[in-house]
Amino acid sequence: MAFKLACVQLAVTATKSDNLVRAAKLVKQAAQQGSKIIALPECFNSPYGTSYFPEYAEQIPGTSSNELSKMAKENSVFLIGGSIPEESDGKLYNTCCVYNPDGNLVAKHRKVHLFDIDVPGKIRFQESETLKPGNSFTTFDTPYCKVGIGICYDIRFAELAQIYANQDCKLLVYPGAFNMTTGPAHWELLTRARAIDNQLYVATVSPARDESATYVAWGHSSVVSPWGNVVATTDHEETILYSDIDPSYPDEVRSQIPIRNQKRQDMYEVKCLK
Amino acid sequence: MAFKLACVQLAVTATKSDNLVRAAKLVKQAAQQGSKIIALPECFNSPYGTSYFPEYAEQIPGTSSNELSKMAKENSVFLIGGSIPEESDGKLYNTCCVYNPDGNLVAKHRKVHLFDIDVPGKIRFQESETLKPGNSFTTFDTPYCKVGIGICYDIRFAELAQIYANQDCKLLVYPGAFNMTTGPAHWELLTRARAIDNQLYVATVSPARDESATYVAWGHSSVVSPWGNVVATTDHEETILYSDIDPSYPDEVRSQIPIRNQKRQDMYEVKCLK
Repeated sequence: MAFKLACVQLAVTATKSDNLVRAAKLVKQAAQQGSKIIALPECFNSPYGTSYFPEYAEQIPGTSSNELSKMAKENSVFLIGGSIPEESDGKLYNTCCVYNPDGNLVAKHRKVHLFDIDVPGKIRFQESETLKPGNSFTTFDTPYCKVGIGICYDIRFAELAQIYANQDCKLLVYPGAFNMTTGPAHWELLTRARAIDNQLYVATVSPARDESATYVAWGHSSVVSPWGNVVATTDHEETILYSDIDPSYPDEVRSQIPIRNQKRQDMYEVKCLK
Repeated sequence: MAFKLACVQLAVTATKSDNLVRAAKLVKQAAQQGSKIIALPECFNSPYGTSYFPEYAEQIPGTSSNELSKMAKENSVFLIGGSIPEESDGKLYNTCCVYNPDGNLVAKHRKVHLFDIDVPGKIRFQESETLKPGNSFTTFDTPYCKVGIGICYDIRFAELAQIYANQDCKLLVYPGAFNMTTGPAHWELLTRARAIDNQLYVATVSPARDESATYVAWGHSSVVSPWGNVVATTDHEETILYSDIDPSYPDEVRSQIPIRNQKRQDMYEVKCLK
């Protein structure tokens, strides 16, 4: 059953309440356009940065996650709530909550791979200075297809997507906030790589670019088809990106180029250890 | 130790002896330009097609492989001999022979994943109608770095490249002949995907395009850096593509974006079963 996916490239500010209000407004707008699954960006309720995570962190359930639940229920949509800094047992996580059209939490993904990189003269960022990693794979069922979730840096790890594909996901959604160095270099390439290697849809959802922020996001939220084509993309302004997803299309591509059946399971295996 | 790699995008004809003569000429030319590793395309000595494989097949050692050995020795280079249809014990394989500067066979890769695809209205091709698959991973050592070999369709299988990366290859070479449907759609994307996910160099070597052939090759031999950039590429004419390879650069990229150390080996594993 085909459906409309909306990626909300939200302009995130330092004022949490404003972020929540504008997210609600855009989610409503996307639902009114017929979207059945709507996704927000990484850190949709706070600026992105290790110094901000403790300040903006909340428990789940908490203010932001309750708002997400309400948005999902009021608009009767599946809502992939980007991510928020989560506090739990004195530890902080970068966490994506997913709500179903009844407003119930159906999945919670804590970013599995923390963003610790150091490109001299370009960017140094160590998420692990304040965050702990999640330890679980995260998928959820919808009437349309099974969906797998990763957050930003998780997209660099091919194994995660391979395991989601093996678990029969037809759509992967990565709320993320690549920067001005890795964004132009790798954001689209990684999205297309995950799609073509696993022959499924991949969507990335970035915040809009804020040049005055300490961490400047690349934007360019995109949806890539199982054939590897970019079927929807945008620049870096606040916008809603719409894409029609046909969950039977991955099967069609897989029958044309049947790499999934042709894998040499006698020679190699991508093993899920959890 | 940096070195020059040459990808010989050979114009392959139906006359085997001509193919061998021209391959020898271009390998010599590439060596005179200082190339230390030289690669030929898939089926460099015969037209590509299931009906041609039995007709052109040879044993190894045999005429073509002996010629390859001679080219390597006379020019004192590592020669990745693209591939030839190989006959062995009454079975046919699509096989790449690699010779060292002494002319000794140092690796032999039989295409592991046979090219069996069916894109309605575009292309149907079933290599398995005449060929058997190989059952081995293939790497070889050079004074520069360890090199992994795949043939054409093998590039679609991310696991092969992941295993080569785990075995410490810094360069993967795929002699291949993508066609006019999958070439423009996927050839560069797959090359870049293998490179960025494993943070190593990837080279693809196609025959030149022959519009009159039953199977029309895309051409566009390319070299992609561990950062995912296309550092050398070409169109579809016969040519030699040169690229400087710095085997320390993968380590540099891996230190900047250390995904190899950050893999969650507690959650997943790409297992080599051979």
